Parts: sequence; structure tokens; C-alpha cells
Amino acid sequence: MLNFEFHNPTRIVFGPGKVAELARLVPPKAKVLLLYGGASAKKTGTLAEVRTALGAREVHEFGGIEPNPTYETLMRAVEQVRLQKIDFLLAVGGGSVIDGTKFVAAAACFDGEPWDILLQRGANVSRALPFGAVLTLPATGSEMNSGSVVTRKATQTKLAFLSEQVFPQFSVLDPTKTYTLPPQQIANGIADAFVHTMEQYLTYPVQALAQDRFAEGLLQTLIEIAPRALAEPDDYDTRANLMWTATLALNGLIGAGVPQDWATHMIGHELTALYGIDHARTLCIVLPSLLDTQRATKRAKLLQYAERVWHITGGNEDERINAAISKTRAFFESLGISTRLSGYGLGQEAVEAVVAQLETHGMTQLGEHRDISLAVSRAILQAAL
Amino acid sequence: MLNFEFHNPTRIVFGPGKVAELARLVPPKAKVLLLYGGASAKKTGTLAEVRTALGAREVHEFGGIEPNPTYETLMRAVEQVRLQKIDFLLAVGGGSVIDGTKFVAAAACFDGEPWDILLQRGANVSRALPFGAVLTLPATGSEMNSGSVVTRKATQTKLAFLSEQVFPQFSVLDPTKTYTLPPQQIANGIADAFVHTMEQYLTYPVQALAQDRFAEGLLQTLIEIAPRALAEPDDYDTRANLMWTATLALNGLIGAGVPQDWATHMIGHELTALYGIDHARTLCIVLPSLLDTQRATKRAKLLQYAERVWHITGGNEDERINAAISKTRAFFESLGISTRLSGYGLGQEAVEAVVAQLETHGMTQLGEHRDISLAVSRAILQAAL
Repeated sequence: MLNFEFHNPTRIVFGPGKVAELARLVPPKAKVLLLYGGASAKKTGTLAEVRTALGAREVHEFGGIEPNPTYETLMRAVEQVRLQKIDFLLAVGGGSVIDGTKFVAAAACFDGEPWDILLQRGANVSRALPFGAVLTLPATGSEMNSGSVVTRKATQTKLAFLSEQVFPQFSVLDPTKTYTLPPQQIANGIADAFVHTMEQYLTYPVQALAQDRFAEGLLQTLIEIAPRALAEPDDYDTRANLMWTATLALNGLIGAGVPQDWATHMIGHELTALYGIDHARTLCIVLPSLLDTQRATKRAKLLQYAERVWHITGGNEDERINAAISKTRAFFESLGISTRLSGYGLGQEAVEAVVAQLETHGMTQLGEHRDISLAVSRAILQAAL
Repeated sequence: MLNFEFHNPTRIVFGPGKVAELARLVPPKAKVLLLYGGASAKKTGTLAEVRTALGAREVHEFGGIEPNPTYETLMRAVEQVRLQKIDFLLAVGGGSVIDGTKFVAAAACFDGEPWDILLQRGANVSRALPFGAVLTLPATGSEMNSGSVVTRKATQTKLAFLSEQVFPQFSVLDPTKTYTLPPQQIANGIADAFVHTMEQYLTYPVQALAQDRFAEGLLQTLIEIAPRALAEPDDYDTRANLMWTATLALNGLIGAGVPQDWATHMIGHELTALYGIDHARTLCIVLPSLLDTQRATKRAKLLQYAERVWHITGGNEDERINAAISKTRAFFESLGISTRLSGYGLGQEAVEAVVAQLETHGMTQLGEHRDISLAVSRAILQAAL
């Protein structure tokens, strides 16, 4: 097992109707800014429910945080925070809204140009406004971690930052809030949580037995619930399992003491930045192809994955690895997600464009062994055509 | 899945040599009281290592916290805290030392008679001194939770309290600190972590899929590492897995959103209080017998446990349940722990004595269904003769 430090102070309040707990969770005299995305937060009544729970507190709103939240939009929120002397932020939405709120929380307290927070990956964040979240879309795990991804529209640059200052103080997880989500967003959430788990699991063995079992448990849970999550939107237990599993997939726990990959995310981010493909879908394009390309260095873990997650025991080692990668691809396809660039109308030109962007962003040594060069990234993308 | 609230702010710092991190983890101007148990903390050099890491800070000591720490001993520590105006506690030891430190932390800030903290199960704790821990014995999980068990020697009463005020701020987990532990303590640690997991897992199904998988993962890990943990005291990875697994077994995570039992603990506590049997060993006496006695209400989970943890697939349902209970008993025995009262020289008189103590302490409705009456407890103990 590798050495590690694990710390996650976010309070999770889980269950139907738990939005009412905001009355207790938000400081009584807070001046609150509600941050949200599109019209659905209003239409579904969640925003009104939140306002009711906040009672007599002074509450302002900032709507319009887009998927893959942009620096340009978020800086308008920062301006509003300063103008209205806001002292508590409340994100109402999914990963994009929560990621955006983390950036606003840090930027509002930052001396200098806030884009530097992203350029320095958060190392320069020494404080942030306190904030909480009401999660409406299970997928990214942002509700219980200290990471955030922000896109600068002007330059098509998508960067992440991490800081202990931007753990949500609390997150309210009410699975019934997911009943009205379109199936595509549920499919994306399942795929996102699956790949988050794989990035921390499918590397090389370091005798981290509990972490491996936990990761395998999350993957098995996602595989088990996927069909019903798509077919029966108002099955409470299925949605509850999806919500908690997606949180556990990226709250630091399964990644403590193990090597991590994240090359799929880095390559995927460029596909989103260039072509606007949903984040989760880019992961489904890259992962199967990456597993195949990196099968030599990932061999031991691929065999473990085949056996424990997919119960593949027949055939020689290479056949079992092939079968596990095929099962992974088929799982994504079963969610209605195409795992080929061609499924999004993209061809060889996209391969070159993504590789060029990876070079521009210094992504020339990716993966747990830092051995995914631009040439390897090109091979991965070629295999995903 | 049941509704839940999960919050665990303890920072875990894991790896060899991490005691040196105390320099960063303890506030620079703290007046520190080191709390520890017997002579081993000194003999092994851990106490000296801790003092070195604390550098120029004012450091006092309180030794002699016994296994199953007593109110009588701990109140002497409270007196010392007040006298020396201590503002930070540092536990160096296993679960008993950390449990004791939690009580000292709360009692030092408590107005009134501190025994009331235990009588009210912690509901009356509104603040506590900040504290950290250096774990030397993997077993109880106290290093990452907010629970504590204290015994009043005068009345042989063993009571627990819980309070968010007594989460350790941090715990240093250095697996090499376990190399010098006697095999009996390692065996006890494995059994303790195993039963902690079972108390939160082996109840009835509530469609908490990830929690079940996590619990099964911890049980499988303990089964996998047990032989080597006993046979090869300085195998780093084995001890690292034991340490982290024992922490995860009782940090609130696998118990979030599921029913919990804890009857084995309540009955076991009386065996320790009356006869001084090691805590973990009392659990190994009670659990197999309790599973057998409660097999009707635990049926679905017993079948799941048989299949997923012990890979028992042959035979009819009752045969599979029998086999799973036998495997559980054999696992404890393989650790060198007797699972029968007779193994400790106890007979029918002990059954009656324990039942009388349970009655005295109001333990008349135990278990996840509150259906373990005194008569059922008697039957469980009878079956453990």
C-alpha cells in the first residue's frame, strides 16, 4: 500500500425531504447566494423548496451556470458576491454547478487574477467562502470532494484545481430529485462514476486490498443498477444507490494509498473542449481503447477486474483481458452511449486535433506510469475511431 | 436504503515514519498532554519519537490507561489537564487509550459530574478539548470515529458515549508500530474489526448495495490477511491492510444507511466487565451463537454472507447458513480464540450472571429488531457454553 493522507470533512445528509435540513445546516445569519444551472432547478420546484428551508435569511440568486462551467460566467458570480457582500454559497445542481461554486468560493477571497487558481492547480488557495450543496444529478462526486474543473471559453482550456478550502461544508442528497432527469443524464452519471472508479483502480497492484474491494464493489453496484436506473426513473432504491455510489466513487476514499491513472480524463477533456461532447461520453470513448493499448502495464489489474467484476474465468489470460474490455465497452453501449469517435461524426482529423491540444496543454506524460506520451495518446484515439 | 447523515472530519496520515508529521499536525503553541497505556509505548521508542516530533512544545505525560479504560483512572487525567492548563491531548496507543482520551477531552470541558456524559450517552457534550492520536494497535476504529467506551470500576459498569465533539482531529497510522505487538493482540484486532463489520452488515437487506459490498470487502480482506498477520509480524503490506481495514470497519461509512445490530457487543461487554475476558474474545463467544439463534430474522443476509464472503453455494438454504456460521466460528478459532464459554472456564453460572447484568443495565431489547429479550440473550449464551 502506498502512503496516504485522507481527510474529508463534508457532511452528507441523505434521504427524501432532506432539503428541509438546510434550516439547520446553513448558518442562521448567513447572506446566501444560490447558484444553479438552467431552468430545471426552478421548474422542478427545488429552488422554491430551498428558499422555504432558508426561511428569513437574506437570499440572492445566480443562475445560468452551464455544463462544463466557464470562467467567464463564474467571474460574473464572483462580482455579484462582492457587490452583495455574500458570506455563504449554496450550490443547487449537479457537478458543474458545484464545481463552479467551488471556483466562486475561492475566487471571491483571492487576491489577484483568479485564473491563476487554475494555472496553479489550487496550490495558491489559502481561503474560500463557506458553501454547501443540494445535489440534483448524481455523477461527478463534486458534492463530497475538493476538486473543481473550469473551462475558459476564450481559449477552449479546461483546467482542474484542488484545495482543502473548497470541500463543501455539507451536501444534501435527496434521490427523489433525480426522478425528473432525462435518461441521457442518468446514463452519463453512471458512466462518469464508473470511469472515476476505474481511474483509481485499474492501474497496477500495490497490495491495497480494501481499496480494491471497495472499487470492485462500486463497479459491481453500477453494473447491477444500470438497467433499472434507466428503465424506472422513480425507483427510489435504485436512484439512492446510484447517488451514493457516484459520491463514493470520487470522495478520495478508494484513491487513498493506491496509484491513479486519470489519462482517460485528460484526453476526454480535450474532446469536450474541442467538440462539446458530454464529459461522460468522452470517457466512454477513451477508456476501452486505453485499457487495450495499456494492457501490458495494466495486465495484473485487468485480470483481477475480469475475474472479480465480470466473473470471467474461462480462456487464457489474454482472452480474459479481451473479454473484460469488451464487457466494459458493451456496458457503456448498453447505457446508450457510443464508445467510438465515429459515433459522434468524428474521424482522423479529430485524432490529430486532440493530440495537438494535449501538446499545447503539456499533457505529454499521462497515466500512472507517466508513459502515455503523445504517440500513445494518438494510438489510443486511433483505436477509438 | 435508510436515510442517513455521514460526517467524519478526522484526518488520517498513513505510512511508516509519519509520526514526524506531528510537527505539522499539532498546533505550534499547544500545551500537550500525551496519554498512553503501559510500558510498551516507552519501550518501543514511540513515545520518544512523538516527543521529538513535538519539538519545543510544552509536553506533559499521563500513563497507565488500562485496557477497558476506567472512569477512575481517566478522572485523574482530567485533574492533571485542569492543573497544567493543557489545551491539546495526544493519545498514543490503541483503542483503549484513544477511547479514554475522548472521555478526558469531553470531561475536561464539562460542567458537572462527568459520569453523566456516559449516563446520557454523550448527548450532553457540547464541547471538548481538541486531540489527535498515534495508533499503535489496529482493532477498534476509535482513531477515526466519535465513540468511546468507559468502565466504572466501582460498579463494573461499561458504558459508551458518542459525540461529534470527540472526533480525533487527526490520527497517525504507521503500520510498522504493530510489528512488536504480541500475537494475541493482533488476533484480537482482527476479530474486533470482523465483528464490527458484522454488527453493521448481518441484519436484514435494505437495498444498500455499496454498503453491503464494502462490508463484504472488509470481511474478505480480514479473512485473506489473517494467517500472514499472525505468522509474519513484520510483513508491511499485511499489517498496513489490517490497520486500514480495522479503521474502515468502524468509521461510520459501512453503517450509513443500514440497520445495525450491536447485540453481540452489549452481551460481550458484560462478559468483560464480569470476568475480564478480552473485549474481542467476548465477541467471538457471542457472535456465532447469536447468528444461529437469530437465523430466522437474519436469514436473507446470512445467505448473502455465505455466498459472497465464504463462497458457499452447495446445499439447501439451511445447510448454507449452517456452513457460514461454522466458517465464522472456525475463523475465530484459527486466530487462537476460543469461541465457547467453557474455553474460559465458565459454565451455566456465567449465563445467569450475564443475564442478570443485562437486566441491571436495561439491555432487555437488543438487536436490529429490538427482539433480543433477556430470554433470547440467555439462549444465545446457553448455545455458547
